Amino acid sequence: MTKHYLLTPGPVPVPPEIALKEALPVFHHRTGEFAAVYRDIAKGLKYIFQTENEVYALASSGTGAMEATVANLLSPGDRIIVASCGIFGCRWIEIAQEYGMEVVSVSVEWGKAVKPAEIEKALRENPDVKAVYTTFVETSTGVANDIKTIGEIVSKTNAVLVVDAISGLVGQEFRADEWKVDATVSASQKGFMLAPGLAFIMLSGKAWKLVENSKLPKFYFDVRKYKKFYALSETPFTPPITLIVALQESIRLIREKGLENIWNECGLLAKAARSGMKALGLELFGEVPCEVVTSALVPVEIGVEIVETLREKYGVSIAGGQGDLKGKIIRFAHMGYIGKADLLVGFTCLEMVLIELGMKIEKGKAAAAVEKVLLKAM
Amino acid sequence: MTKHYLLTPGPVPVPPEIALKEALPVFHHRTGEFAAVYRDIAKGLKYIFQTENEVYALASSGTGAMEATVANLLSPGDRIIVASCGIFGCRWIEIAQEYGMEVVSVSVEWGKAVKPAEIEKALRENPDVKAVYTTFVETSTGVANDIKTIGEIVSKTNAVLVVDAISGLVGQEFRADEWKVDATVSASQKGFMLAPGLAFIMLSGKAWKLVENSKLPKFYFDVRKYKKFYALSETPFTPPITLIVALQESIRLIREKGLENIWNECGLLAKAARSGMKALGLELFGEVPCEVVTSALVPVEIGVEIVETLREKYGVSIAGGQGDLKGKIIRFAHMGYIGKADLLVGFTCLEMVLIELGMKIEKGKAAAAVEKVLLKAM
Repeated sequence: MTKHYLLTPGPVPVPPEIALKEALPVFHHRTGEFAAVYRDIAKGLKYIFQTENEVYALASSGTGAMEATVANLLSPGDRIIVASCGIFGCRWIEIAQEYGMEVVSVSVEWGKAVKPAEIEKALRENPDVKAVYTTFVETSTGVANDIKTIGEIVSKTNAVLVVDAISGLVGQEFRADEWKVDATVSASQKGFMLAPGLAFIMLSGKAWKLVENSKLPKFYFDVRKYKKFYALSETPFTPPITLIVALQESIRLIREKGLENIWNECGLLAKAARSGMKALGLELFGEVPCEVVTSALVPVEIGVEIVETLREKYGVSIAGGQGDLKGKIIRFAHMGYIGKADLLVGFTCLEMVLIELGMKIEKGKAAAAVEKVLLKAM
Repeated sequence: MTKHYLLTPGPVPVPPEIALKEALPVFHHRTGEFAAVYRDIAKGLKYIFQTENEVYALASSGTGAMEATVANLLSPGDRIIVASCGIFGCRWIEIAQEYGMEVVSVSVEWGKAVKPAEIEKALRENPDVKAVYTTFVETSTGVANDIKTIGEIVSKTNAVLVVDAISGLVGQEFRADEWKVDATVSASQKGFMLAPGLAFIMLSGKAWKLVENSKLPKFYFDVRKYKKFYALSETPFTPPITLIVALQESIRLIREKGLENIWNECGLLAKAARSGMKALGLELFGEVPCEVVTSALVPVEIGVEIVETLREKYGVSIAGGQGDLKGKIIRFAHMGYIGKADLLVGFTCLEMVLIELGMKIEKGKAAAAVEKVLLKAM
């Protein structure tokens, strides 16, 4: 009977309108009924990615779509640049090395944002690189990278720009075409407000040229298969039908509210969350904080305990740090179906936990700080 | 308001008890709550595969798990035997060739069952083969292969036996360990009675020896990652949480009924379905008919129309033929949440459609034939 509040940066809560769609009877995927749904989501995905390119839905976690951009765009021994600033940026390096790529790393310390000027320099010094891989919102640190500027730089070269927009898409302004992004991947359990299990991949014309020459083995993630079936409003393999039907509802809700309004709301929640963290005496983490999750440094002695106590005593799930940041930071999500009231639930309970764990905080301070930001915008 | 009856060999209908689980709120996957669910399904999957080996759940269609057995067990240039008898058997060849394997094909004509003696001969003539890939139930034709005999043969060699049990598992007797199967893959949308989106992979100790020496690139499907996280009751990547929770319920229902009882019931339904087809004047297709789907030859002039009319006029979905069998056969599933009454719905409506399309059939004949078999067993 514990009431749960999911405030982690993926999965995020699924609105009941969407959740109920997941419980609808399944139907066969080689039918006009499925094709109609697929056509509708194909259109919606273009809107959400802000692109004229085709976007394919894959039955997979986001990592599968990341791997697809390596396996489909490159050939053994190709050189690529990876601009990473956290765990998910490093994942690009791991995948690329597994496939035998030569990686030019322009990575920065976790907590910093990647430096467009460093990418520009690396591209000048390595004119043969096929692609630049980077991350839009680095979930592990809460940092957003300047994809627009990076897109400007990469578009002047022969390289393609591949962006992991798994966490940032929908919640924070992202414009694939205008920003000259050639490949974008995302997943269902963040801004889309869906259960995990669906991933997305978008490829530009420039990226498709690389696909044609790619010599890495792939089958399930072969984008040429998805393209071929896309033309028929189908998928090459049995799709996760309930998630696809739920995606149609998710897209409907996103369209109804409008991307700009969602971006603005996440921005407001981010501002309020940052203010809440400061009121709790916690230092914000991340050079360029993103708008879908807020990270703050916590005393290492209680870092892990904060997250566990919040979940056990109050049913509130936030995330701790991952990898080298374990126990050092907490991460509080505010995207998708997380609203103003959830923010207050999270911050008031967090305040109680910090007090219980020995921090000297005046009761009500976090709420006051969050309320102040929210009220100013009402 | 059309009432739908899903009688296709995947997806199959999802019982409401399971469907509602898919609509439950998502929760975070790096928690004790998820670990408890994962431990429970880990135990249940061993029961369902009839194995002591670990079984991993992947966010993917079944084909992803098939690819995983190639990418994880083999190295470039390895020789393998593929014993195929339909579209899904041929998929093994396609995947293997994509990864640069040398394929010794002991394929048979679609509609026939693979010949264990041919596999034995091929193994003798090619003592260097690393693995034999085959299919348990070939969904595209409705044929079941004799995995027990094949397992006996392969186990005497250095090769491992890899079996696609996507369609047959749960519905038809399958015993991974007793039959000496080294790698089995399956998926959620057949006997498990779940929505599509989850795949499974089981590996024996003999198969793990190959994994250690495999030199093909893989990341998302790297079984070593799944093994490592399995020990923590976690998955390496965000799991499709709603499907995992639904799987727990599916396993509970399967355990409650008991595998042997499910196998017997599918066997009975298969017998009734074969009798129904014959009563309609249709010749059964498939040398060794399986127990989860029944295929029959239909007049090619109306082959496609039968399936479409059934769906449009009566809301009944069965499958037609795929590939070279398009328009030539129909396939009627009877596994999972498809019961005796559904069989009667399907056959009576099929009879009406065949009559409408010009076949001379005495009304009620199909029902009589199906009822006769069912009543005898009551």
